[in-house]
Amino acid sequence: MGREKHERIPVSLKEAANEPLQQRLTECRGNVESALDRLLPREDEPPAVLHRAMRYAVFAGGKRLRPFLVLESCRAVGGNVELAMPAACAVEVLHTHSLVHDDLPCMDNDDLRRGKPTCHKVFGEGMAVLCGDALLSLAFEILAVRLPETGLDAPTALRCTETLTQAAGSRWLAGGQAMDITEQTTNYTDRSPETVLRIHERKTVALMQACCAIGGLIGRTDDGQIRRLREYGYWLGLAFQITDDILDQTGDGKSLGKTVGKDAQQKKLTYPMVFGLERSRCLASEAAQSAVRALDSFDGVAELLCALALSLPERQS
Amino acid sequence: MGREKHERIPVSLKEAANEPLQQRLTECRGNVESALDRLLPREDEPPAVLHRAMRYAVFAGGKRLRPFLVLESCRAVGGNVELAMPAACAVEVLHTHSLVHDDLPCMDNDDLRRGKPTCHKVFGEGMAVLCGDALLSLAFEILAVRLPETGLDAPTALRCTETLTQAAGSRWLAGGQAMDITEQTTNYTDRSPETVLRIHERKTVALMQACCAIGGLIGRTDDGQIRRLREYGYWLGLAFQITDDILDQTGDGKSLGKTVGKDAQQKKLTYPMVFGLERSRCLASEAAQSAVRALDSFDGVAELLCALALSLPERQS
Repeated sequence: MGREKHERIPVSLKEAANEPLQQRLTECRGNVESALDRLLPREDEPPAVLHRAMRYAVFAGGKRLRPFLVLESCRAVGGNVELAMPAACAVEVLHTHSLVHDDLPCMDNDDLRRGKPTCHKVFGEGMAVLCGDALLSLAFEILAVRLPETGLDAPTALRCTETLTQAAGSRWLAGGQAMDITEQTTNYTDRSPETVLRIHERKTVALMQACCAIGGLIGRTDDGQIRRLREYGYWLGLAFQITDDILDQTGDGKSLGKTVGKDAQQKKLTYPMVFGLERSRCLASEAAQSAVRALDSFDGVAELLCALALSLPERQS
Repeated sequence: MGREKHERIPVSLKEAANEPLQQRLTECRGNVESALDRLLPREDEPPAVLHRAMRYAVFAGGKRLRPFLVLESCRAVGGNVELAMPAACAVEVLHTHSLVHDDLPCMDNDDLRRGKPTCHKVFGEGMAVLCGDALLSLAFEILAVRLPETGLDAPTALRCTETLTQAAGSRWLAGGQAMDITEQTTNYTDRSPETVLRIHERKTVALMQACCAIGGLIGRTDDGQIRRLREYGYWLGLAFQITDDILDQTGDGKSLGKTVGKDAQQKKLTYPMVFGLERSRCLASEAAQSAVRALDSFDGVAELLCALALSLPERQS
């Protein structure tokens, strides 16, 4: 990871982009939640308790940032955003799977998520494990079944499925969490920048990269654009996770909707622990600017993606 | 479920078929384990501990019955068995995922599996949850990535992926386990035949049906043959699970390689509990014969599948 010199973000760009970004985020959240409601099994369908748990976890709130990345990446390459909606839902379902399992007592042992009791607090640990499993299968089912129904060709639907299975697997999402809990049990004797980056790349960044790539794939763009979207996703994911680390240390539990100070308590390796707070803030800001630069060649059609990246280091929740 | 009259299995058929069946099962096990070894991440690849856990779980033994169903269903419709090998591995990886999670303390709380300490006993609960998650993603990754590499067309690879995602999801595999643990917590006040059948259909039968369907799909046969293979898989899965229930009550822990008597201890709803031992034996045998009848029109090319079905009620491990 090359770290660029810390440049000031032009204030006018940040402010100008903010309102349309908020509007689009709100619009996206509404559309995604309606689509999720149609894609998730009904609560009265057996096994009812499992389906209630799945819906409880998926509809517990959340910014729906990953679906936004899918939809806006598709839009940025001139694709039909409607066709990308099932994939946008699939990545959110997969993300929820990882939250439900991460919160388990044998992992991060969290009681609160987005201000509500976590899935296992409400439904029990066994049901939470199954809920996470069922959400993971559902994510892939949506890609394999719903994407082709929108008229997307089978090879592209398969590439989207491939992209998400890889991001979720042992080398990335599950692998990052494995490194995270291993670091905890070994009392993080290794506090190197490389180690914290390696964990964050796996736990957070890979899925965001996959979201951007999937949006591009559905928009049927060329490999060069997909590569640029993946690079954007890389820096965006990093900016997001560094800010997450900072907020866990400095944030307000109420607006975050989760227990703060957990990272330190659980001896998790974080950016502030390795670099200190101030340097971490700089790194988050630099990552956001690298995200914007990755989309230089998009010539303005990706302005909301850029605005999103620039807004991340400023977020409070 | 219509239950047919209990007919005697012709002894000659059972004996004649047994030796080639054992040979083919042994050969299949060897080939599948070699292929699994190539498909699973190496132990020294980071995160090493997660990859060790995955390999520990997958190579803990087992009959590799589900891969056998994929390969022999493909062979029975005249397909190229080589092309079906990745899918055979995918179903075994998915099956292992479900074993690792089922064994967790918050689920069935099993210390032994196939005569060895269960995954969470060796690697800890958090790692076992992640191991199961990573195996589930890997199963779908194998279908989405490896199947097309064999030259299989994208629409068929996508249908195989669809078939497996559905079998794994909340309506079937995960759903059956959810019903199972719900029954336990409600002290199985409902001991109806319908309820035990509903749980077994989900927990065991659906995946075996999916195996047969996937073998048929890769063999590029028509929908009628796929339907017959699914019906075979239904009765085979039922015969297998009823026998499993019987063995948990009457079997020898050493040859089974797991703790016996767990079902009663955990107040699980089983066939012997609902029907008694003798009637359960009859039902297993009837199910095996229904499996054979489902393949009547295959005119002898499915004889090992038939022999397998007939051997199930006799199995001791």
